[in-house]
Amino acid sequence: MHLWFKEEQTAGFGIVAKIKQTYYHEQTPYQTLDMVETETFGPMLVLDGMVMTTLRDEFVYHEMISHVPLFAHPHPRRVLIIGGGDGGVLREVLRHPTVEQAVMVEIDRAVVDVSQKYLPEIASGFSDPRADVRILDGFRYLSDIAETKKEVFDVIIVDSTEPVGPAEKLFERGFYQAIFDALTEEGLFVAQTDNPWFKADLIRRTSRDIAQVFPKAFLYTANIPTYPSGLWTFTMGSKVYDPRHIAPQRFADTPFLKTLRYYHPALQEAAFVLPRFVSALVEGVVENDLSL
Amino acid sequence: MHLWFKEEQTAGFGIVAKIKQTYYHEQTPYQTLDMVETETFGPMLVLDGMVMTTLRDEFVYHEMISHVPLFAHPHPRRVLIIGGGDGGVLREVLRHPTVEQAVMVEIDRAVVDVSQKYLPEIASGFSDPRADVRILDGFRYLSDIAETKKEVFDVIIVDSTEPVGPAEKLFERGFYQAIFDALTEEGLFVAQTDNPWFKADLIRRTSRDIAQVFPKAFLYTANIPTYPSGLWTFTMGSKVYDPRHIAPQRFADTPFLKTLRYYHPALQEAAFVLPRFVSALVEGVVENDLSL
Repeated sequence: MHLWFKEEQTAGFGIVAKIKQTYYHEQTPYQTLDMVETETFGPMLVLDGMVMTTLRDEFVYHEMISHVPLFAHPHPRRVLIIGGGDGGVLREVLRHPTVEQAVMVEIDRAVVDVSQKYLPEIASGFSDPRADVRILDGFRYLSDIAETKKEVFDVIIVDSTEPVGPAEKLFERGFYQAIFDALTEEGLFVAQTDNPWFKADLIRRTSRDIAQVFPKAFLYTANIPTYPSGLWTFTMGSKVYDPRHIAPQRFADTPFLKTLRYYHPALQEAAFVLPRFVSALVEGVVENDLSL
Repeated sequence: MHLWFKEEQTAGFGIVAKIKQTYYHEQTPYQTLDMVETETFGPMLVLDGMVMTTLRDEFVYHEMISHVPLFAHPHPRRVLIIGGGDGGVLREVLRHPTVEQAVMVEIDRAVVDVSQKYLPEIASGFSDPRADVRILDGFRYLSDIAETKKEVFDVIIVDSTEPVGPAEKLFERGFYQAIFDALTEEGLFVAQTDNPWFKADLIRRTSRDIAQVFPKAFLYTANIPTYPSGLWTFTMGSKVYDPRHIAPQRFADTPFLKTLRYYHPALQEAAFVLPRFVSALVEGVVENDLSL
């Protein structure tokens, strides 16, 4: 039997992947979860029919959503991850020797459990004593800590699914304000914001919303072959720091850099140089606007 | 009827595109040619079952394979395009006011004819008086001019198909030597060299071959959503110039820059900053090696 996975990324375009084995299927309280083995990209986690991560290309997303904001901050000690149930962001965040605590707030316990079983290379950070994993709604978590003001973070990373289903409210302006309130005075955050070929309106809107809440907003990209169009965007809101101009000594004492497969210090600036059609979406809104 | 195009880019991974209309099919002396209308990317030219270009995303490939080498040269007057039958590279090359002649050598007349009919926005350069289009084998053309030494070029652009079928010998070291011989003393050339996710060996080999023929070799990338992995590489061989460091005045008197949709001057450097796994393929070979 030939078994092919298909994701229609638009109404008329998609990817197909040959499946060697199906491992697991579950309708969780929040979404449909599937674990399969693909021929080309290895084990693949699928939520609501959309590719979340594959063992072969996960390093791009996880390195780029983590190291760009973490190096943009001079001494990130407390980091909050919203979503990120597969553990990939947690793994990357914990590579940073300055990080004393990484709180991960994931709504769906099944994603954590299945990733630990089928994607142990990605889910390798859960046993780290600095990891504090909580299974609850990220939006609600932020509301709760806003009341007590006891917990603040240097860096917040929003590793959400698409803005449908459980992640829908993670793309609203009120959420960005809650993020702002949970950051220290020098804090910054980053969110995955989909691709510019098929989701131009989303990028336009999220950039504007983030720029209205934060003094500075920035957009950067990375190539993820199993995500729609291969070109993924990340939007950063920052209270103080410009992520593109980092003193070289910030990269000292970080020997893990040599083990990475996508990120390196030169990309800290180059990833913010956008193709013109992407700049045009965020013209006048983000700091790395090219003034077309 | 629902009609879907499928390209298996590897044995286990590919893209699918919904087809609104099929326009044309021909078995030419060199390859199978199809013109279809896709729902998401508009008109699409397919050669031997592989996406060559679509109206919606063609600007990326054509701008990046043309403007990066042309701006790297201080005054490109004579340009040779090998392949490029759809006319997209010709269109971009002719935007440069310094260009006095653009010779295009395409082996398959059918590609030119079909592009003029179905992709007039791409094939818009053929009527320019500076365009000299010849239907013949690019390798043979280079051999012929090598004998007479009457024709030399400032910039050569190799816009070939994949290294199967008619383009196979355009990926051999002897071809790069013929290119070298057809360039002026300050000349440079660029070739499309596929993607690093599925064709790592090809990139490794072509980079090495080009670096053995040219004093300097460089690799750069661009995002093309309809090409395998979305991350396309271009390899440059240069006798003198470093394409990454261009004096700002080089970009004066080029008002067409404002009409482009992907390329802009900041990418002239940023496109050469490679993800680490791509750098690793060409370590010690190309100039933009990051010394991993």
